[in-house]
Amino acid sequence: MYRALARFMNKSLRAWVLLCLAGCVYTVNVQAQHPNLVITSEDVRAMREAVTQSGGFAEAFQELVSQVEGLMSQPIQVPTPQDGGGGYSHERHKKNYQLMYNAAVLYQLTENTAYAKFVADMLLQYAAMYPDLPLHPKRKMNFQNPGKLYWQSLNEAMWLVYTIQAYDMIAASLEPADKASIIQKLLRPMALFLSEGQPSTFDKVHNHGTWATAAVGMTGYVLGEAEWVEKALYGLDKSGKSGFLKQLDELFSPQGYYNEGPYYQRFALLPFITFAQAINNNQPHRDIFKHRDEVLLKAIDTTIQLSYNGLFFPINDAIKSKGIETIELVHGVTLAYSLTGDTGYLDIAQKQGQIVLTGAGLKVAQALEANSATHYQFKSVAFGDGADGKQGALVVMRNADANHPGANNGSAVLFKPAAQGLGHGHFDKLTWQFYHKGAEIVSDYGAARFLNVEAKYGGRYLPENTSYAKQTVAHNTLVVDETSHFNGELAKANRHHPTLELFATNHSGSVVSAQIDSAYAGVNLERTMALLEITGQANPLVLDIFNVSSDSPRQLDLPVHYLGQLISSNFKRHANTTQLSPLGNANGYQHLWLKAQGKPYKGLAKVTLLNDNGSFYTLSTLTKGDEQFLFTQIGANDPDFNLRNEQAVIRRVEGAKQHTFVSVFEPHGDYNPSKEYTLNASSQLSAIEYETRGDLLLVQLVLNGTSYLIAIDKLKRAEGVETAFKFKNQSYSLSGPLAVYLMTNDLE
Amino acid sequence: MYRALARFMNKSLRAWVLLCLAGCVYTVNVQAQHPNLVITSEDVRAMREAVTQSGGFAEAFQELVSQVEGLMSQPIQVPTPQDGGGGYSHERHKKNYQLMYNAAVLYQLTENTAYAKFVADMLLQYAAMYPDLPLHPKRKMNFQNPGKLYWQSLNEAMWLVYTIQAYDMIAASLEPADKASIIQKLLRPMALFLSEGQPSTFDKVHNHGTWATAAVGMTGYVLGEAEWVEKALYGLDKSGKSGFLKQLDELFSPQGYYNEGPYYQRFALLPFITFAQAINNNQPHRDIFKHRDEVLLKAIDTTIQLSYNGLFFPINDAIKSKGIETIELVHGVTLAYSLTGDTGYLDIAQKQGQIVLTGAGLKVAQALEANSATHYQFKSVAFGDGADGKQGALVVMRNADANHPGANNGSAVLFKPAAQGLGHGHFDKLTWQFYHKGAEIVSDYGAARFLNVEAKYGGRYLPENTSYAKQTVAHNTLVVDETSHFNGELAKANRHHPTLELFATNHSGSVVSAQIDSAYAGVNLERTMALLEITGQANPLVLDIFNVSSDSPRQLDLPVHYLGQLISSNFKRHANTTQLSPLGNANGYQHLWLKAQGKPYKGLAKVTLLNDNGSFYTLSTLTKGDEQFLFTQIGANDPDFNLRNEQAVIRRVEGAKQHTFVSVFEPHGDYNPSKEYTLNASSQLSAIEYETRGDLLLVQLVLNGTSYLIAIDKLKRAEGVETAFKFKNQSYSLSGPLAVYLMTNDLE
Repeated sequence: MYRALARFMNKSLRAWVLLCLAGCVYTVNVQAQHPNLVITSEDVRAMREAVTQSGGFAEAFQELVSQVEGLMSQPIQVPTPQDGGGGYSHERHKKNYQLMYNAAVLYQLTENTAYAKFVADMLLQYAAMYPDLPLHPKRKMNFQNPGKLYWQSLNEAMWLVYTIQAYDMIAASLEPADKASIIQKLLRPMALFLSEGQPSTFDKVHNHGTWATAAVGMTGYVLGEAEWVEKALYGLDKSGKSGFLKQLDELFSPQGYYNEGPYYQRFALLPFITFAQAINNNQPHRDIFKHRDEVLLKAIDTTIQLSYNGLFFPINDAIKSKGIETIELVHGVTLAYSLTGDTGYLDIAQKQGQIVLTGAGLKVAQALEANSATHYQFKSVAFGDGADGKQGALVVMRNADANHPGANNGSAVLFKPAAQGLGHGHFDKLTWQFYHKGAEIVSDYGAARFLNVEAKYGGRYLPENTSYAKQTVAHNTLVVDETSHFNGELAKANRHHPTLELFATNHSGSVVSAQIDSAYAGVNLERTMALLEITGQANPLVLDIFNVSSDSPRQLDLPVHYLGQLISSNFKRHANTTQLSPLGNANGYQHLWLKAQGKPYKGLAKVTLLNDNGSFYTLSTLTKGDEQFLFTQIGANDPDFNLRNEQAVIRRVEGAKQHTFVSVFEPHGDYNPSKEYTLNASSQLSAIEYETRGDLLLVQLVLNGTSYLIAIDKLKRAEGVETAFKFKNQSYSLSGPLAVYLMTNDLE
Repeated sequence: MYRALARFMNKSLRAWVLLCLAGCVYTVNVQAQHPNLVITSEDVRAMREAVTQSGGFAEAFQELVSQVEGLMSQPIQVPTPQDGGGGYSHERHKKNYQLMYNAAVLYQLTENTAYAKFVADMLLQYAAMYPDLPLHPKRKMNFQNPGKLYWQSLNEAMWLVYTIQAYDMIAASLEPADKASIIQKLLRPMALFLSEGQPSTFDKVHNHGTWATAAVGMTGYVLGEAEWVEKALYGLDKSGKSGFLKQLDELFSPQGYYNEGPYYQRFALLPFITFAQAINNNQPHRDIFKHRDEVLLKAIDTTIQLSYNGLFFPINDAIKSKGIETIELVHGVTLAYSLTGDTGYLDIAQKQGQIVLTGAGLKVAQALEANSATHYQFKSVAFGDGADGKQGALVVMRNADANHPGANNGSAVLFKPAAQGLGHGHFDKLTWQFYHKGAEIVSDYGAARFLNVEAKYGGRYLPENTSYAKQTVAHNTLVVDETSHFNGELAKANRHHPTLELFATNHSGSVVSAQIDSAYAGVNLERTMALLEITGQANPLVLDIFNVSSDSPRQLDLPVHYLGQLISSNFKRHANTTQLSPLGNANGYQHLWLKAQGKPYKGLAKVTLLNDNGSFYTLSTLTKGDEQFLFTQIGANDPDFNLRNEQAVIRRVEGAKQHTFVSVFEPHGDYNPSKEYTLNASSQLSAIEYETRGDLLLVQLVLNGTSYLIAIDKLKRAEGVETAFKFKNQSYSLSGPLAVYLMTNDLE
């Protein structure tokens, strides 16, 4: 520990000496050089040069100048804290830290003291107010640790993360008395308040803890408080059982997956990458970016991988319009490129179209101008969940065409045998989604929320987020007896997770299998899905085999929520044309209008949709005549029109102890009313046969008159190990977990 | 007549002589040179050169080569006619004429005789079949004149329009015997069949007649049958009471508006511009493009003007995805540029992104490569309807930002005091639509049809097109006693039209007023709308004053159909949360689920929406407490899920002899969940006052605390003529029909 501290001091002094050699006249400050958090004095030299030239970096700079000048022309407002989220004082204090940060950046880039003075003036107003502030009047003690500027300390930590950087950038310009006042009345008390003042948050291995440790640790670097840095890294007791490093070890899986899902992963990323850069600049010997086999880089990359056509897969509580253009991921991609030099990240940076005014941002801007971008490769991956990566997984399967961000025609399956993901998790074990030609087709509702729209429940999560969006029936997975997984109980859900039994990718496509026996007492759910690339087929097919076994007869519902218009079904539907009623009373069913139902005979039951992307999609289900098809629309029991009125088809089996739902989801055709042609509006699939032989699943598909045999070996035999079997009097040899064979004999 | 013929022969011979001087060894053909319809031999010389160089024209050529080569590699199929629209023989014969046309173009461009031989072979197969063909077995004698290749003669005329051009381009390559066979067995009999064989269509002043006259006239030019040309131009009796020139005189208004609306205008355009080019090339003295003050050019330009963000305003039976990229308008814009040299058309051509392989197409390609495009100017226009331009009008009002095709942030109001527009017209006198930030906000359902989707009623107009889409309640205009305008009777509707009372545009915006007393017996409907540009307001506002007076008490419904999510209303809504029923029994009402209703107190009733474009919209209605607000969703009595489930709010007054609906539609704010900000989610409008003084309408609006007075003078005083009036103790001077004043005294 002392060695580390010695090194830190050593490096700090060395850098300061270098800085002074470069011509500065700072008063001696043994605690720290300035700036040296995310932006370093070395960065600043290059950045000052870049803003005088043309290019993306200079443009971003000019944009910031005009934005900040506009805001600086208004009087400084540092209101007494009184409002909750969305209210005036809350929003004002948020804007203030952004403005201080931006003005401080401009001070570094332009050396115009007006920027520094503006930041100093605002800091002094905060310093005048802060010491006497009580806990925030809108605090909610049972839910969140309170702040003083804000109702929750999370916002206070965010305030300090930005403000300490602003301070770091203008510190050298401050009069000694002002500096002392800002340090003593504002920065020190706030850092202490956020650490010793709230051990339960500071020592929590949770995203809120990350903001607190980042704020306190960065303040430690700037004020030369090595002890604060140690506490930030290892917890208040410095044992390493909590703190930033523990958060890095626990909050991400070894592959860099954050178990609340990509929407929150993106949000969680920012304090990690901000503090990590500060650590790297102040204590490079820690090799923080190498920590845990480069987990932070993996976390950035995983966030990108968990997107389709620029938007994150909207699992759990997610606002669906969030994607790779979010500012957190702009910072992440900027860092990833500057650390790795991997030109694939420039592809993403190009799509983001935003340049960050940091040293790393300058590298990105220059590389983009040199046309160095190469295709970023999207992959098929099972992202292990949990700190050990073994608590289930979040699985993405993509076809070859979907491997780079420009390829909006590709197909992607998102399959979720993942852990619950804490309070923002949905009760949707083994759910899936399907994407094709740039669009979400088999859909996830995401969160029921209009972010920041006051008229919609204050912009918070709507009541329907709990009553509908989190419920199992709102997802594309199995509901037993109209109740949600784990009976909708979070504590129970957090204790259990599915088991990933198989995941493999080869030239025939990708396959995944997972099961869970804890979602319902006495019921085992096992789902095998494959994204099949069949030679000669224009689009990959999704094969879905959902096997349910129960200790007693149950009602089994398996929904497919879709975005599009119902075109047809090959069985009779009885529509409720003059009166609609909800499908059920609780657990999300109360929000579904039952629009029609049908009970197809034995054989292949087909439902065809048309999406606005111009493609048709047919869900073909192999039925024995025991499956009812219910056609629903969201919107019942929604007095405030809070829900989107989307459609679903639900397959229902009643009183079953065992049932296997076997289906194929098939994209086909092209609807082009502008050019007046419609191609292949009908499904090409005319038959499915299905059988199991121990761990071997065999599925025969007849497509356009040609038979294909799909073999899936759940024993996970390695590629190259041959398994021989016979099917319909023909011999096959299977090598690996997935194969597609062209059958030379036809259906009998 | 004889002089014209003499000139025609003369020109024809002269051109032929020139052609032979250029080195050809044709047998003497006194009837015509080849080619000389849309593509001339002079065009061909330049085109042959262009395809050897790089550029858009050469790219379009290469694309066509690969497409045609692919199709030519398959055996020629000329099936016996047996199927109706969408069936095999129907689609095959359609593909055949396109293929013959394209192969013939390639023959001209490459002089590769394989293309000519392919066309000749196919023509000979048609020639072998045609003489013995009976009328088509799927003919519907009561509806359409039948063809022989197709169920309706319309398709046969289209076949000949393309095929005569293909023949014209390969004729020089034919063996005399083959040529004689094609002329005698195919071209002559078909031209006679389409003219003398079906006088009722040939002499009809209707789009179907245009295709017939174009086919016959063009065949006349090629075969040297001057008589056929005369009949095509002046009708079978050559009196001029029918024929192509009469069609030009009657089917368009003086401003070039086609009264079925832009969707059908685009479709109707093609035979006009095709035949006109043939006329111009063969009989330039006719000055066909100058005919009726250049009505054909005006028709092309009007079609462009009737679009927003690339899509046509979807009034009447319209497929909503049709727009400026349709092939008909590609030909139209190509012609318009080549005739006028107006570089604004290149702006549109650029958006279309398609190059036509004609002489005119080459000019466009070359001009685009020279970067000659300038902004095409979209305007605010009242397009007079009917042959005299006095049967009402279709009105477009745009704000300044919406004046060019790149400006997707602009606002546009479409207002429809137009005539019925024949069989494809909707019963929607005085309806309106609103567009903003690239999106349709106040919406028109368009046609209920899935074009060419066999599973949806054979791809034809759905039954719901009549039962819903055409009905008045499906539009944004007034419904009396739950019945449609003219009681939904087409013959009656065709006899009447609204009167355009006022249309004006100045720096304060645009204003329009129209009325009709024939939509309902004993009821007068009068609507005044303005798109107001108020200094300091981010967006224009739409003012809507709908005055209804009746000879007896009636129920008055005024719907606003919208695309978006309901955010809030400032009055209590009683929602039907557990059971939905249709709003009515007939005239479209049977398709509307009643989701909620409310009856606001006296004052300003507000309903706020959020569109996917990220903007909020508030409808503020000045009520006396006598208006009910009904919230509906389309989808009742729709057993086949044929309708889109869109929303509306309907203002209802019961038992009224007179009522004025006064409202403002206000775009505001910005919802950006990706960047996590929401601005101005609330309407800025806090009060409306309204009064009339004879022809003067006075409306006071309070926006963000500032009062504005809107004055509309329906007397249509010219700009510059001053009218003095007082309002709230202040004097005003009105010059022109519309003014917006900043009020210095506030609301009392």
